[in-house]
Amino acid sequence: MTGLTVTDVRLTPVLVSDPPLLNTQGVHQPYAPRLIVEVVTEGGAAGFGETYGDTQYLDIARPLAEALPGRRVSDLNGLFTLAGTVEVDSARVEDSVDVGGLRGVQSADKLRLSVVSAFEVACLDALGKARDLPVHALLGGKLRDSVEYSAYLFYRWARHPGGRGEADDWGAATDPAGVVAQARRFARDHGFRSFKLKGGVYEPDEEIAAVRALAEAFPGAPLRLDPNGAWSVPTSLRVAAELRDVLEYLEDPTSGTPGMAEVAAGTDVPLATNMCVTTFPEIPPAFTSGAVQVVLSDHHYWGGPTRTRELAAVCRTFGVGLSMHSNTHLGISLAAMTHVASTVPNLDYACDSHYPWQSEDVLTRRLTFRDGRVDVSDAPGLGVEVDRERLAVLHRRWLDDDGTLRDRDDAAAMREADPEWVTPAVPRW
Amino acid sequence: MTGLTVTDVRLTPVLVSDPPLLNTQGVHQPYAPRLIVEVVTEGGAAGFGETYGDTQYLDIARPLAEALPGRRVSDLNGLFTLAGTVEVDSARVEDSVDVGGLRGVQSADKLRLSVVSAFEVACLDALGKARDLPVHALLGGKLRDSVEYSAYLFYRWARHPGGRGEADDWGAATDPAGVVAQARRFARDHGFRSFKLKGGVYEPDEEIAAVRALAEAFPGAPLRLDPNGAWSVPTSLRVAAELRDVLEYLEDPTSGTPGMAEVAAGTDVPLATNMCVTTFPEIPPAFTSGAVQVVLSDHHYWGGPTRTRELAAVCRTFGVGLSMHSNTHLGISLAAMTHVASTVPNLDYACDSHYPWQSEDVLTRRLTFRDGRVDVSDAPGLGVEVDRERLAVLHRRWLDDDGTLRDRDDAAAMREADPEWVTPAVPRW
Repeated sequence: MTGLTVTDVRLTPVLVSDPPLLNTQGVHQPYAPRLIVEVVTEGGAAGFGETYGDTQYLDIARPLAEALPGRRVSDLNGLFTLAGTVEVDSARVEDSVDVGGLRGVQSADKLRLSVVSAFEVACLDALGKARDLPVHALLGGKLRDSVEYSAYLFYRWARHPGGRGEADDWGAATDPAGVVAQARRFARDHGFRSFKLKGGVYEPDEEIAAVRALAEAFPGAPLRLDPNGAWSVPTSLRVAAELRDVLEYLEDPTSGTPGMAEVAAGTDVPLATNMCVTTFPEIPPAFTSGAVQVVLSDHHYWGGPTRTRELAAVCRTFGVGLSMHSNTHLGISLAAMTHVASTVPNLDYACDSHYPWQSEDVLTRRLTFRDGRVDVSDAPGLGVEVDRERLAVLHRRWLDDDGTLRDRDDAAAMREADPEWVTPAVPRW
Repeated sequence: MTGLTVTDVRLTPVLVSDPPLLNTQGVHQPYAPRLIVEVVTEGGAAGFGETYGDTQYLDIARPLAEALPGRRVSDLNGLFTLAGTVEVDSARVEDSVDVGGLRGVQSADKLRLSVVSAFEVACLDALGKARDLPVHALLGGKLRDSVEYSAYLFYRWARHPGGRGEADDWGAATDPAGVVAQARRFARDHGFRSFKLKGGVYEPDEEIAAVRALAEAFPGAPLRLDPNGAWSVPTSLRVAAELRDVLEYLEDPTSGTPGMAEVAAGTDVPLATNMCVTTFPEIPPAFTSGAVQVVLSDHHYWGGPTRTRELAAVCRTFGVGLSMHSNTHLGISLAAMTHVASTVPNLDYACDSHYPWQSEDVLTRRLTFRDGRVDVSDAPGLGVEVDRERLAVLHRRWLDDDGTLRDRDDAAAMREADPEWVTPAVPRW
């Protein structure tokens, strides 16, 4: 076990370009915070991970980064114990509790797990490089050579309010025709065969019409709609009834496990979630009440690849479906997600990823989707190489920011266009 | 990933000396079958695993051994897929279904998992040796430097019927005084601090008296009683009530999950099992009905270290306790068990092991208990070395056997002393 002691941990917060994608909370800001974690071993191996870069996450990452040197890079289980000792300012967590938020109720544990996730990925990457093993081999070996992803469609504007941020050539998508055009481009460029629409933006009937238009444009393609818990139980049931012939699953139609259970009891459409079940303690009430049929196991939420594999085992045991999700991330996380997804037997659905929307990355070579799939690398570690100049540029943007973009706030971004905007209460419809 | 292709798999069935230990089915035979699995990689690393050696297990191990060469030794997840393709003669499984047996209902899947377990351990051992990593590091790293075990007390005779087998100096233990004397020697020789008595042998009142005697001899020590499902629900409740002040848990008092749930509803004594929950499909009914409070996760039953860790995650999620168990095994399995146990955060109880009863081993140096604990090795792989001469001697015994000992049969052994003996129907009392 020589050469595996951690000697240094470097944290690099960055701001990455993000298009004006709409959701029920508001709109994405022109730049999104992200944290790059680098773990270096005495053997010289450097491993990378990434996670959310908001201040709350940085506040946990910093003491964890200080505590890691001297420990073995292979001590992944110990990361959770270590993170448990990091104090989280509960007052700040309380302040940001948001049942209608994009990832359910916030808690100190959820913040810790999202931070640990990046550390675990970085340790796996470093360990793999040190021992000539791809990350998937450290997770028991891949069961497939590529992992399928779905197109992640968004209602969006052509430009950010005030023309801020980086321009792109996607144009607006605010109606069924715009959504279909976006889907066609995704299918052409990346070969995606299933489509998820981020909903909760317009009246349910408009979103129903968009999904219907997708079904006509892509007959038989698996379709998903995700309003981020914006609907009441009756609205959820109405949408499920109207789209039951074309939906692969309906994602978080309503907020909270009891509401999801009510919806599930009234429809045959499977319900998926990355809101009401994002931690292990949330599993028993949801699984025993039949509230969810598919868990979207974002490895950031769940605490990293190992915990994601454990979640997969729990889902297998209880006959609950599994897929994966990841939002506003770079290539490091896409690689990590692909490695862990390749090792899970019960990966029942194509995974979600925002990656095609991220025009910037910290890699020397971006990952690509072919036929909607990402190849699982057999190179040591994650199999990606970080471009340190690119990383420095994105970090510089973070340093230069006056603080307004360092904490993601989709409602604030929306107020740039609509000064009266307040985060909608749920159920919104 | 060079040097990790499996080039050869060697299966070595052995017969190992076993004392005349009593249980509700009968008595241990003088020798017990065990299978040693050796996996060799092109890099020259040789890894070892062990599991049950009965014919049914060998019949699955042979085709699996033939299928493995050419695959990566790190492809642990793929072992389950591969084993699933091995056909099991269902007629022979049906024949040996035994609800009252020592490990619950037999099934083709359970047999496959027990075989895979040895292959997974052998692959982990080889991978660890090839990459200078202890097995615990391949499982996310140890959380403790030693693992606690309990004394595994048995009613026993001084000698096997007819004086067969190897002699030992333990003498008989057929009453409370004998049990206490055995416990004292275990405590003195190995430092064990908790005690499990294999029950279901005598009338419940006699076994209650033995546990009471242990409680008097070792005040405050955690005590367990395991009649292997031999009791009715009312008898189980009566024993639980009489011993509630001294039992850490009661193990499999009655057979089957519904009966266990009835007992659990009527007592505060936690119920443990390695009979009604030994596979993942058995978990939901048992956990949702509150039938078991502790799962004894024998890594042979569950399919190896990885699955054992997954079971631990399920138990954590549902607030069910976890311990580990292993019967009639050698040092390879004790090492494997110790590695995996060291990586599980929720190891709530001292583990069970028959190891102190096994006077023979295939290791150059036996593992030792100090203060009831086994140290977790940081050497590559399992950290044990197989003595090939010893292995050959025990294999020769298997080759020379006329077939009567190649399949464990505690009832047949009992008939050597009592020709009228038949496997008792459950509930026996």
